[in-house]
Amino acid sequence: MSVLYIQEQGSHIAASDGRIIVDASGTVTSIPSETLESIVIFGRVQLNESAVKLCLKNGIAVTWLSSKGEYFGRLESTSHTNILKQRSQFKAQMNEEFNLALAKIVLSAKIKNQAVIVRRYNKNTHDEELYATMNEMMHLRKNIEEASDLSQLIGYEGIASKKYFRALSQILKEDFKFESRTRQPPKDGFNSLLSFGYTLLFYEIYTTIVNSGLNPYAGFIHQDRTNHPTLVSDMMEEWRAVIIDSMVLNAISRNMFKQEDFITDEQTGGVYLKNEMIRKFVTQYENKVKSSHHYLSYLSTPMSFRRSIYHQISSLVHVFKEKDPGLYKPVLIR
Amino acid sequence: MSVLYIQEQGSHIAASDGRIIVDASGTVTSIPSETLESIVIFGRVQLNESAVKLCLKNGIAVTWLSSKGEYFGRLESTSHTNILKQRSQFKAQMNEEFNLALAKIVLSAKIKNQAVIVRRYNKNTHDEELYATMNEMMHLRKNIEEASDLSQLIGYEGIASKKYFRALSQILKEDFKFESRTRQPPKDGFNSLLSFGYTLLFYEIYTTIVNSGLNPYAGFIHQDRTNHPTLVSDMMEEWRAVIIDSMVLNAISRNMFKQEDFITDEQTGGVYLKNEMIRKFVTQYENKVKSSHHYLSYLSTPMSFRRSIYHQISSLVHVFKEKDPGLYKPVLIR
Repeated sequence: MSVLYIQEQGSHIAASDGRIIVDASGTVTSIPSETLESIVIFGRVQLNESAVKLCLKNGIAVTWLSSKGEYFGRLESTSHTNILKQRSQFKAQMNEEFNLALAKIVLSAKIKNQAVIVRRYNKNTHDEELYATMNEMMHLRKNIEEASDLSQLIGYEGIASKKYFRALSQILKEDFKFESRTRQPPKDGFNSLLSFGYTLLFYEIYTTIVNSGLNPYAGFIHQDRTNHPTLVSDMMEEWRAVIIDSMVLNAISRNMFKQEDFITDEQTGGVYLKNEMIRKFVTQYENKVKSSHHYLSYLSTPMSFRRSIYHQISSLVHVFKEKDPGLYKPVLIR
Repeated sequence: MSVLYIQEQGSHIAASDGRIIVDASGTVTSIPSETLESIVIFGRVQLNESAVKLCLKNGIAVTWLSSKGEYFGRLESTSHTNILKQRSQFKAQMNEEFNLALAKIVLSAKIKNQAVIVRRYNKNTHDEELYATMNEMMHLRKNIEEASDLSQLIGYEGIASKKYFRALSQILKEDFKFESRTRQPPKDGFNSLLSFGYTLLFYEIYTTIVNSGLNPYAGFIHQDRTNHPTLVSDMMEEWRAVIIDSMVLNAISRNMFKQEDFITDEQTGGVYLKNEMIRKFVTQYENKVKSSHHYLSYLSTPMSFRRSIYHQISSLVHVFKEKDPGLYKPVLIR
């Protein structure tokens, strides 16, 4: 199953004989709809009525983002709503202990994965400060395991994240160094790349959650917020460093993005990738999520990141049903 | 707030300066988006990208139906999802007694409203058989109040509905008489009109439920079914006879629809309104839901049916929050 990203401004999407036909400035691509899981539209793209119906009938999610990655909404068919799964999701989450235990598993994995990213970059440099940061992060994992409530847990995770991003700034080349993680808007090139990557991952996970029949708004770590799909934020945690951070660090180290690829919005101070570079970034992302790895402890065969996300969400469905957080095995990189 | 129905095949919908612009075979209508609650599209209608974005940003629901009223899907923004309301909805519904008590209130009102429809038509005819049917229906209301579980309740409601539809067939003019209520497909003109009317009401209530922040898939009367929004079916019950049945009976008695206005699908035996008559039917429906009445016991001012549906769903939100079915006052016609 694949995701179709349409970035060419003024493109037209139509459907014919069960195929999705994309006309991007005269270049026409035709894709059999049964291989498509989702379509992500950036900016000014026309989706015609035949395409709307084919997507709705075949349960292909369509997400509209602005060219900067701002979310507008999605086209939703009813083909995946599973009320029984949602009932068990809500029921499991009524138990505070359940939420706390599951949050510990996911956030502990998040910190572990962040620490591994730092370790990989320190393999050759053997920087003492980075060793110290890693130790502190591993210590915070212990605190997390002993936390007595969610707010304490989230507090420890916040401290670990600050340490982690400071370490990343040390690792980065001179022109990509940054003060701290900034969002809405990102204030520098590195944060801008992270934010755009997290947006792509967010809608990847959002679609997977909806297609798995769960309710994306009912989360177990992040506090309930109107209009915010917190379960998606929760399920992002174990993947952020694994997929996006490592991809962005890698792209920068290979000089794929330079400071002149960004523009600054004078009004907000927000820093964004230039339109023509977004395509390059999305290609990187697609290559990454399609690449195989062995990180899921419960599977012996290598598997793409995209497929692994699907497996993790399926496992979450099972965890809610059994009300047993211990059944959740997070992704842990090495 | 209004609902825009687009039935003209080949119409185009665009947006400009915050207005929705409809081009139906050259006739252009412009509607300020802030007055629009929802757009219902029948068949082959083009919604362009500017309109998609305006609808998503302003939380205007867009529903795609075939020209026969078959559901394709909807455009969904996140602007109304309220996870706290959904949590209280799921929590209230975990209690079987709560569901049973609320179902009794709604289904008892349904039967009462059906019986009133029959009584109105018997005011001049004084048919003995219709009197007997009304008495039997009122007796079944008592059974419903004493039912010990949902399946018993639904059983009694089914018997009452059979009696009711038999009475309607008696009331109807010769050429609209029918054997029994048939659906998917409807097998005669009367059933066809009812089905189309119920479809319009269904998406009216669906949109109201979503806009009120509740989960349309989690119902309290009808059993959970994958991909079926059972809460919408539940909340239809008190309105079916009040809005649709009375409207259809009235239209037929005034000769607005004749047997030659229908076509039969030879393959399925399904009977459908001809395309050119659908517009007439939708106009009838709009006139009906915009007309005022005094049927809500908790309000002293007259109010349109559309607004009343909104009030009833808001009241349901409160009932879930308080976990007190007794707070629900159903619509009861006189």
